[in-house]
Order: sequence, then structure tokens, then C-alpha cells
Amino acid sequence: MKLLSFLKDGRIRSGVLVDEENVVDLNTTCYLMLMEKGEDEQFIERYCDALVPNDMLGVLQAGEKGLGIIKDIVDWAKKRHEVLYNINHVKLKPPLPRANMLRDFLAFKGHVEATYRRRGQQIPEEWFKFPVYYKGDPAIFYGHLEEIPWPKYSKHLDLELEIAAVIYRKGKDIDKKRASDYILGFTIFNDFSARDIQMAEMKCLLGPAKGKDFAKGLGPWIVTRDELPDIKGLRVYAKVNDEIWCDTKVEDMHWTFEDMITYVSQEEYIRPGDIFGSGTITGCTGVDIGKSLRPNSTVELFVEKIGILKNIIRG
Amino acid sequence: MKLLSFLKDGRIRSGVLVDEENVVDLNTTCYLMLMEKGEDEQFIERYCDALVPNDMLGVLQAGEKGLGIIKDIVDWAKKRHEVLYNINHVKLKPPLPRANMLRDFLAFKGHVEATYRRRGQQIPEEWFKFPVYYKGDPAIFYGHLEEIPWPKYSKHLDLELEIAAVIYRKGKDIDKKRASDYILGFTIFNDFSARDIQMAEMKCLLGPAKGKDFAKGLGPWIVTRDELPDIKGLRVYAKVNDEIWCDTKVEDMHWTFEDMITYVSQEEYIRPGDIFGSGTITGCTGVDIGKSLRPNSTVELFVEKIGILKNIIRG
Repeated sequence: MKLLSFLKDGRIRSGVLVDEENVVDLNTTCYLMLMEKGEDEQFIERYCDALVPNDMLGVLQAGEKGLGIIKDIVDWAKKRHEVLYNINHVKLKPPLPRANMLRDFLAFKGHVEATYRRRGQQIPEEWFKFPVYYKGDPAIFYGHLEEIPWPKYSKHLDLELEIAAVIYRKGKDIDKKRASDYILGFTIFNDFSARDIQMAEMKCLLGPAKGKDFAKGLGPWIVTRDELPDIKGLRVYAKVNDEIWCDTKVEDMHWTFEDMITYVSQEEYIRPGDIFGSGTITGCTGVDIGKSLRPNSTVELFVEKIGILKNIIRG
Repeated sequence: MKLLSFLKDGRIRSGVLVDEENVVDLNTTCYLMLMEKGEDEQFIERYCDALVPNDMLGVLQAGEKGLGIIKDIVDWAKKRHEVLYNINHVKLKPPLPRANMLRDFLAFKGHVEATYRRRGQQIPEEWFKFPVYYKGDPAIFYGHLEEIPWPKYSKHLDLELEIAAVIYRKGKDIDKKRASDYILGFTIFNDFSARDIQMAEMKCLLGPAKGKDFAKGLGPWIVTRDELPDIKGLRVYAKVNDEIWCDTKVEDMHWTFEDMITYVSQEEYIRPGDIFGSGTITGCTGVDIGKSLRPNSTVELFVEKIGILKNIIRG
């Protein structure tokens, strides 16, 4: 399944792609489906609000119960034209407009090597011991085709092509063998970075903060694991305006999402709506290839089996 | 006012101190008060759930509307013994069991000097340019008298005595002159740290992550700004078992909460339920004074006009 969020009548709705062309609004379709079955209207309102609310975070919090009714909704909606919206006629929002937490890792060895090579250093031995990460603002996502304002405080913007795993179960002290059970699916993540501020902040050994927390691209949808069990070997590219910045495969991921989940969940709950960013895929950021974004750039990220996430930086 | 959370019938309730001895449950008391006024029962349920739900995060999200009804509840409850609980007979939880975001700063110059002095270094010039911070897990708080498990992965635990400002309004690009309007009030914050893991993580210039995200002390309540307009000059102490670790005043805060709010809110919303930690008050952490916590230590933090936050580390 492909889960997404979109705008209807000025409000954000959670939705799902029922086929290649059509989207349904989960909450409204849940209501119509249960009305047809003759259930009590007031109960239906409460039940659909509990399992498939308009905000995707709420849908993920409903876990397997939410996914169960989404499958029913998809089957029911396929034959009913009146509840379908053409994907090209809706304005997409980030699939998860407000995540629970955002943790972003540094899993790709080639990217980490390039970072330390620029500084004339070796990768610190700690990087090989555990998956390092920073935590970002979980409510600053922009969806496919949404415009991103250039942050006033930065002169050096960059993209980072990453894949994000989305969590839909609560758990703690999770064994690596069971870790993938916590992942609902994957989406494309653009960890836009203000390099000038990021570098200044990191000199104080905390952060990054404002170097990261102004905008993130997320989308176009979350592809669930039944369609995409793993991301290994997927082709990816990043294109800025008409220029290819990288075109590669997901290959040198030193730390898997299972490693990250196991590490993070020590003594700490991971929760539905948590996002785990993979870190920059090797070569897929401007600093690694000597480029940077300009105002009014169009940034297109592609991940095989997920799709395209495109944003324009307005400045 | 003093806002808090407590356990009743196995569930967490939002509450308020109505006098020095007594607490009321906000949601239940809202219901009883509006029933007495003859409003419709189903409306009352929805209205009280919207303005004063059981989770304090929801109460803060209701902003001024929530605070308005809390004042009515306090006035109404004072004369009604049947809705009052003696504070000594309830089990406190952290006042905000799940925050929206946790940002923790490094505002006290003496603490920062001590940190860099240990490393044989000067404070980096960036520290004087902007208020640096890390982001922590906003759902790992322990309230007054709650036991904290010793994290299995660490051998070196430390306390950090801080004061936290709690946000109750949404805003972006906030002018410094208006910044204090966003603060609901203050509480005591113990930024427990696993120094061994924290140091290893920070060598990779990201984090801290597991060095911080296992437990935080928060409480005993949030004192609103009408009672405590500012924290400057407040006496504070930290006591471990029967040993005083520091006894000082809030004095050398280089960055104020207003500075932090102005800095963070550039291009980014701050939101109700955000917590801004002050950073360690000068001298009020083990590493600054050559001490560390042991299993089964009792850690007591005092801040004048707020109270005492005591936790036991079980290990």
C-alpha cells in the first residue's frame, strides 16, 4: 500500500492510493463504508476518528487495527467512483505531516568517508561501534511539489538524499531479529541542510539545530513493507534543475534500520510515527560533489519502487 | 498556579494545586462544574476533553482557553471537599508526561567554562554568537519521587540541575520583546546523563543520543508566570543522598529563555508543550565537581519558588 496525506477543502486528510491513479480519503471513506453496513452514525464517527483520523500520525498510532480497516477501505472504494480522487488533481502534503520523533542517522560509509576526507581526517572509531544520529524537528516536513522557503539566516543550502523508515508500533529493548516488525514502510527523505549554520553549531558539539530544522522533504507516500520489504540495491538519483547530482544504488549501508531500531530502543520506547532517516546515500549531497543549491532550484529525488519527491526552493 | 499530573485509578490525570495541600483532577472537575450549571452531558464530555483533557500536553495546546477554564475550576473546587485530593496521598507523575519537543541549551557561562577547562580549551567563539542546544526524547520524563532505572549500557551516570521553561503558544519568527508571552511557566529539570556514552557519541559530532535519552527528571509541577515571572536570582541546590553537590543562585545565565525562543523560532514553529531546558546551572553537575552517581542514589534538586524534585536511581 501507499499511504499519503493530501489537502481537501483546506484541511489535511490521510489517504491511500487504491490504484495507480486514484486516492481515497481514509476517514470519509471509512464513514461511508460503515454507514452502508448499517452501523450507528455516532459510533461510526468515533470509530473512524479512532482508527483512521485525518492526521496520519493518528492512523499509525492505531497500528495493525488501523491497517486492517485501511485494507477494507481500499477493497470497498475500488468500485465506487464517487469516493475516488485522481492523484494528479489533489495537492499532496508530506505523508506524515507531524511525526512523533525524527532521528536521522549516518549509515552510509561512503558518505561518512567523504565527510572526513574533506577535513583531512579518518572516520572516528566510534562510528563503527554504534549508529550515530541527531534528532530533528518532527513537524517541518514538506510534501511532493510543495515549495520550500529559503531560510533567511543561511547562504549555503544543500540537499541530502535519504530513505526513511516509518515506525508504527511501540516497543523497547527490541531484539534485532524482531526489529523490522516495527517498520510500516519506507519513504523518500530530503534532509535539507543550511551548511554554514550547521558547521557553526557543531563546533559547540551540540546540534545540529537551525542548520537542519527549517525544512525537510518527505514523500510522496509511505510504501508499506508488503510492497517493499527492503531497500537494499534500489536505484536512486538526485537531480537539481536539469543536472544529475548522483545516480547510484543503495549499497554501502553500514548500519541497517534493524541496527538503528535495536540501538535506539535500549531503555527508550520507539513509537508509532517515529521516522528513522538513513543518512545521506553515498555521493547524494552537494558537499560531497562540490555543489550547492541556489534560490529557485528544483530538487528532484528518485528512489526505485517509491517514486519521485520534488520540491522547489523559493528564495 | 501550579499545574501537575498524577495517577488516579491507574491512569494519568492532569491536575492543579488549588491550595497548599490539595489537588483536583482537571477533566473530572470540569465535568462536575459544568453539570452543576445544567449544560448538556454529551457536550460537557466533549468540551472538557477539548480544553482540559487528561494529558497535560492537550491542556497546554488549549492555550489561553485552557487556562481560563482552569481558573474557573480552581475557584469552583475550593469549596467542594469531595473533589479534592491531598497532595501527600497522590502519586505524582511528571507535570508534562509527553512534551511536544525537548530542546536543551547550554546557557550558563560558568558551566561551559568548566567543561572546556577540563578539556584544556577555551569556550568556542560560536557559543557567544547563538544559544546552542540539543534535542532530546520528549517522552522519557520521570516525576517527583519516581524511581529511575539505571541504564544497562552505562557505567557513569550524572545529574544536571536545570530549570525548564514550558511553552503554551504556537509561534514563528518571534521578536525577543514578545518571547516571554510564549512561556506558560517554569519547572525543575534533571537532565540525567550517561557520560561514557555521551562522550563517545559526541566524537562523531552528532548527538548526544543514548547519552541523554533514557530518563529525565521533571517536576514537581509547572509554576505559571503569574506566580514566578522570572528565574533570575533564585536559590537552587542539588543534593545526592545527604551530600550537597551545589548550593548557588541562578546568576550567570548568558542566554535567556527569550534569546532561545527568538533563535529557535526562526523559520520554525515553537509549539504548546515544547520544553526549553536552561542547561546546567553553574556547578550543579557531577563532572564539574568531580563526582558521579552510584546505584540507589537519591537525587534531590531544589529551586526556590518551585520546590523539590527528588528521584531515586535504581540499579
